[in-house]
Amino acid sequence: MGDDCALLACQPDQVLAATIDTLVSGVHFFPQIDPVSLGHRALAVALSDLAAMAADPAWVLLALTLPEVDVAWLQDFACGFLALTERYCVDLVGGNLTRGPLTITVQALGWVPEQQALKRSAAKPGDWVCVSGFLGEAGLGLKMLLGEVDWRDERAIKHFLRPQPQVEFGLALRGLAHACIDVSDGLAQDLGHVLVASQVGASIDWEALPLSQAVRRYIAETGDWHLPLSAGDDYKLCFTVPPQHVAQLEQRLQRLGLAWHRIGEIEENSGLRLRKDGRIISVPPIGYRHF
Amino acid sequence: MGDDCALLACQPDQVLAATIDTLVSGVHFFPQIDPVSLGHRALAVALSDLAAMAADPAWVLLALTLPEVDVAWLQDFACGFLALTERYCVDLVGGNLTRGPLTITVQALGWVPEQQALKRSAAKPGDWVCVSGFLGEAGLGLKMLLGEVDWRDERAIKHFLRPQPQVEFGLALRGLAHACIDVSDGLAQDLGHVLVASQVGASIDWEALPLSQAVRRYIAETGDWHLPLSAGDDYKLCFTVPPQHVAQLEQRLQRLGLAWHRIGEIEENSGLRLRKDGRIISVPPIGYRHF
Repeated sequence: MGDDCALLACQPDQVLAATIDTLVSGVHFFPQIDPVSLGHRALAVALSDLAAMAADPAWVLLALTLPEVDVAWLQDFACGFLALTERYCVDLVGGNLTRGPLTITVQALGWVPEQQALKRSAAKPGDWVCVSGFLGEAGLGLKMLLGEVDWRDERAIKHFLRPQPQVEFGLALRGLAHACIDVSDGLAQDLGHVLVASQVGASIDWEALPLSQAVRRYIAETGDWHLPLSAGDDYKLCFTVPPQHVAQLEQRLQRLGLAWHRIGEIEENSGLRLRKDGRIISVPPIGYRHF
Repeated sequence: MGDDCALLACQPDQVLAATIDTLVSGVHFFPQIDPVSLGHRALAVALSDLAAMAADPAWVLLALTLPEVDVAWLQDFACGFLALTERYCVDLVGGNLTRGPLTITVQALGWVPEQQALKRSAAKPGDWVCVSGFLGEAGLGLKMLLGEVDWRDERAIKHFLRPQPQVEFGLALRGLAHACIDVSDGLAQDLGHVLVASQVGASIDWEALPLSQAVRRYIAETGDWHLPLSAGDDYKLCFTVPPQHVAQLEQRLQRLGLAWHRIGEIEENSGLRLRKDGRIISVPPIGYRHF
């Protein structure tokens, strides 16, 4: 710190995975969000990108644009941010503080052996389509914070405010999974990116989607069964794994105490299909639109 | 591109220099600035940080926050940005596009052999204090654009709008210079950072400051001789070099066709002193204040 750049030592036989993410006040978060959650979230989103490539996080750089210096706010933001750097043994090695509308850009760097990096383009027909945890829960938490739902579930709200990047899960996929992406904009859209990049299609089973009690209750009450397909912000991993690697993956994840769920399979025919109530529905790439 | 992260190969026996910079509309640039210049400037500022560490630029990541998608504007911005990536053989390996107030964050990565990285803390008493080119010219260009000066000098305006990062110059300093910094916030402030980090002081000679014809004219007309000390945006390098390396450095820079200027020397006593008109003036760390 203090110099114009941070100096970082290389890992032999690995490649550097680099990602950059921006959160804008009023677009990606409520202006009134508590700064501890904001600090957590800003880093979680960046680490999630590393997790999706099966990279091991090493360093982060933080560019913070603030309308004014508010020491108490900054301390809380740092608290949320640094707790997560500690949790994942990541070093904050550089930063930039500027004046302007509240915007947070996080740049994260991690390591992965080149052959084991998970790419969107690597899905193959016959692969299982899997996810690393509940879908739609953060989206439900957001609806609660927006007052669109008249009951509260603290777990769902916490999933929205403090998403847990699936770093250990991503590392466990090395050498076994084919393609991977993190679910930031909604399953249909994010899995859609994998299908397009891999030039394949997929069928998923509605009944197989892992849903929390709260999401089941929400769907039962509203009939809005799209939520687990279209809601973003879960930051779970959606990955594809060939059937011959399933047993080994199951063993590895069980040892780590990590749950996972098969939700469908990769097919030759392009497009995403949903099996629900005995019918097959074609699913457009619904989800969060950045513009 | 298209995956969650870029994957970058390592250089053996080198360390990675990483920097992140944000430009905010209305703070770091006029909202009406032409987008080609803005694209150029956003990258130039980041490459300048690499140059100041004597790092060889390799990759950049760009996080762009825009109020709306304006294709013509984006094309022009990309034109300015990509011309500079080409000029310095840098690969744009990742990015992020979000909606919000116009903000540009550039993250640049480069390589340097660990022992040859130039640090702010490495200045030693007896070192020459030098700069890599004219001072105050970009500041004068800014005054012209703001209408604070009633004549124009296209060269000065171009220096402000399209600063040239001193990448080759920084590489030439490897193994010869001690400390280095890029002049982004004004010579007095930036050299001040070196003095504090190195726990030394310096004296500089007013007569030795390299000034363009336009800056000389401006000072003659206004009496504002602070400009070359306080104006930022020049992105020249200010470095210190021990006398025993001067001959070798001169030879190396001459071969590259790069001009340089001795402006003073590092001393044991802390603080920055200016010799002007036979007097010695103590210089506070004047320059651009980020908050």
